[in-house]
Amino acid sequence: MISKKMQKLVKNNSVIREMFEEGNRLKKIYGEENVFDFSLGNPNVPAPKEVAEQIKKIVEKEDAVSLHGYMSNSGYLDVREKISKSINQKFHTKFSSKNIIMTVGAASGLNIVLKSILDKDDEVIVFAPYFSEYNNYVGNYDGVVVPIKVEEDTFYPNLDKLKKAITSKTKAVLINTPNNPTGVIYPEELIKGIAKVLEEQEKELGIDIYLISDEPYRELVYDEIEVPYVTKYYHNTFVVYSYSKSLSLAGERIGYVVIPDEMKDSSIMIDAVTISNRIIGCVNAPSLMQKVVANCLDLKVDTTYYKKNRDKLYEIVTECGFTCVKPVGAFYLFMKTPIDDKEFCTLAKKYNLLFVPASSFGYPNYVRIAYCVSHETIVNSEKAFQELSKEIKNIVQK
Amino acid sequence: MISKKMQKLVKNNSVIREMFEEGNRLKKIYGEENVFDFSLGNPNVPAPKEVAEQIKKIVEKEDAVSLHGYMSNSGYLDVREKISKSINQKFHTKFSSKNIIMTVGAASGLNIVLKSILDKDDEVIVFAPYFSEYNNYVGNYDGVVVPIKVEEDTFYPNLDKLKKAITSKTKAVLINTPNNPTGVIYPEELIKGIAKVLEEQEKELGIDIYLISDEPYRELVYDEIEVPYVTKYYHNTFVVYSYSKSLSLAGERIGYVVIPDEMKDSSIMIDAVTISNRIIGCVNAPSLMQKVVANCLDLKVDTTYYKKNRDKLYEIVTECGFTCVKPVGAFYLFMKTPIDDKEFCTLAKKYNLLFVPASSFGYPNYVRIAYCVSHETIVNSEKAFQELSKEIKNIVQK
Repeated sequence: MISKKMQKLVKNNSVIREMFEEGNRLKKIYGEENVFDFSLGNPNVPAPKEVAEQIKKIVEKEDAVSLHGYMSNSGYLDVREKISKSINQKFHTKFSSKNIIMTVGAASGLNIVLKSILDKDDEVIVFAPYFSEYNNYVGNYDGVVVPIKVEEDTFYPNLDKLKKAITSKTKAVLINTPNNPTGVIYPEELIKGIAKVLEEQEKELGIDIYLISDEPYRELVYDEIEVPYVTKYYHNTFVVYSYSKSLSLAGERIGYVVIPDEMKDSSIMIDAVTISNRIIGCVNAPSLMQKVVANCLDLKVDTTYYKKNRDKLYEIVTECGFTCVKPVGAFYLFMKTPIDDKEFCTLAKKYNLLFVPASSFGYPNYVRIAYCVSHETIVNSEKAFQELSKEIKNIVQK
Repeated sequence: MISKKMQKLVKNNSVIREMFEEGNRLKKIYGEENVFDFSLGNPNVPAPKEVAEQIKKIVEKEDAVSLHGYMSNSGYLDVREKISKSINQKFHTKFSSKNIIMTVGAASGLNIVLKSILDKDDEVIVFAPYFSEYNNYVGNYDGVVVPIKVEEDTFYPNLDKLKKAITSKTKAVLINTPNNPTGVIYPEELIKGIAKVLEEQEKELGIDIYLISDEPYRELVYDEIEVPYVTKYYHNTFVVYSYSKSLSLAGERIGYVVIPDEMKDSSIMIDAVTISNRIIGCVNAPSLMQKVVANCLDLKVDTTYYKKNRDKLYEIVTECGFTCVKPVGAFYLFMKTPIDDKEFCTLAKKYNLLFVPASSFGYPNYVRIAYCVSHETIVNSEKAFQELSKEIKNIVQK
């Protein structure tokens, strides 16, 4: 009936659905406000007011045929020009419109990049813990995900391990910084280190290795930390960006891919990614939203809200004696579990605390706590964390 | 560098680009109004005014977090409910929200259906002439397109040929009515005939065969002709719908897939298609546009404009002595070429007439003339058609 590839996915999906339904069941019993659902990575800070103003203004001003019609598969020229100029201004790069391909969010961006580069059995190195959808995206093109575990004290990748993992089958290394699920940001020195390893291995093995930088959380940074612009450090770099979190437009599906001139045969790659964008069925990024984001390039959501959440949550979990690296970006806190992570999550449910076990991120004995929730939810969850901590201590001591 | 699959596509793409650039070259030399570009299938009638009103109203009224945020991968529940009710009212079907999956246009709709059903080397039967992107969509999942030529006098498929083409490898039959590029609509008797063949062959071969009805042109019908609702005639039917043409929202990427309860194991299939929607990178259909189309279900663009174009173009080409079946839907006229279609297109360019040779639709010696252009373009092209006709007659007589 359904294809063989999909059979496994449908089966796994029912597990996720059960978790989701369990959350709803608890909310029905105890009331929405008494269930502390930290499982979903959905932005809860509204889009800046200017977004609504721009939508209305553009709909009033622009001709409907061109506003809602097909454009080039890579997006409106004026939009791509504005975006390239904005990136250049912020990061001292030298992009023009041709280096930008508008996409149906970062998820499509990653898909069209992977479709353009992967042959069957090609390997894509990721750093665990990693967003589990990468398995599906790489699998769509019959590639193989090769996970390397990050160091536990920093959540940064180890460069020696990276070097050892690269084979003649390696086609890409996929990074995500600020990171889901750890909340860390790779510093410049680390990016330079990764670039050096890739350059050396490209030469050593006589292959092209792409660095794919998945950047939906670029603007969610809390402690004056700089997020290096990766194309400046390595030639074969794709940047995959999204406005899902920066402008809280996750459902609108709007983002872009950057393909720099420095990439080998960049114009062929630009063609390939543009064609991929068309033939996987996106055709082009949603037209009205392209115009909207182009007029909101200097805006972002109120990140102080997430920062306040981060601070309170970090205070609670550390005071309860749990271990974590303090997150500096994105909206996740990655917490060590003194027992098996799935058992930990089951136990946490007794206190109406919902987390995602990090086994699903390829890094067991941790949980991901998504703090894109109301601040009250975090404040009110303190007692539940304390009780959970007590029970865990009892278990561990036995 | 780029994947092997993409290498061929990038090469072919440059041919299309050359055609496009040739059009632009002619327009620069002779002026936009003196070049009769009938090559592109882009809607040129604006979206109904109510669409803009709805966009503004929804943005003002709705909470930004839920309006622009993630929802279920299959789309907003209220939107799917409204759409299912509207279909039920129009076609006396019995769908509910669960039978509807909102998509990033029909192109994504087709992709997520094909991804859900195709294993490597599975066959998808299409009726030539057919939209050439079907080759890419089926190829994305390593399927094989099996084209059957339609009858030349009607542009309808022959049922005996269909029966003979079905093998144990057949997974789907893909129809498109109103049709791109012929403009014909399959009557009820023909749909019944196709359904009968598929039912018989399902039993005979002990396999499931899906009928995929690609319906972006459903609302573009000119002569009081009914477009049968295919799920009523065959159990294993997917309907793939788009608002691209009905509301002239092609760039917004909004449509849906219908999976009826009558389909074998329909709930598993609904899961599979929903997961495919997520993992090919769409995640969900653009959120604001979901809300907009749900409030515009009884609207469509002014089709009298296309009808007027159809009538004038048909008059011109028949008076010039060209042969065609009068189109009754979509916005294409499919015209026989007395010489090789590619040579015909080259010759036509001398008179600033731009067509797509039907070789690219798998049906040589025809051209597709897209009449979604200004009415003046059609009126002004009459002389060019006459001159082309004269030259062709001279060539044929030699």
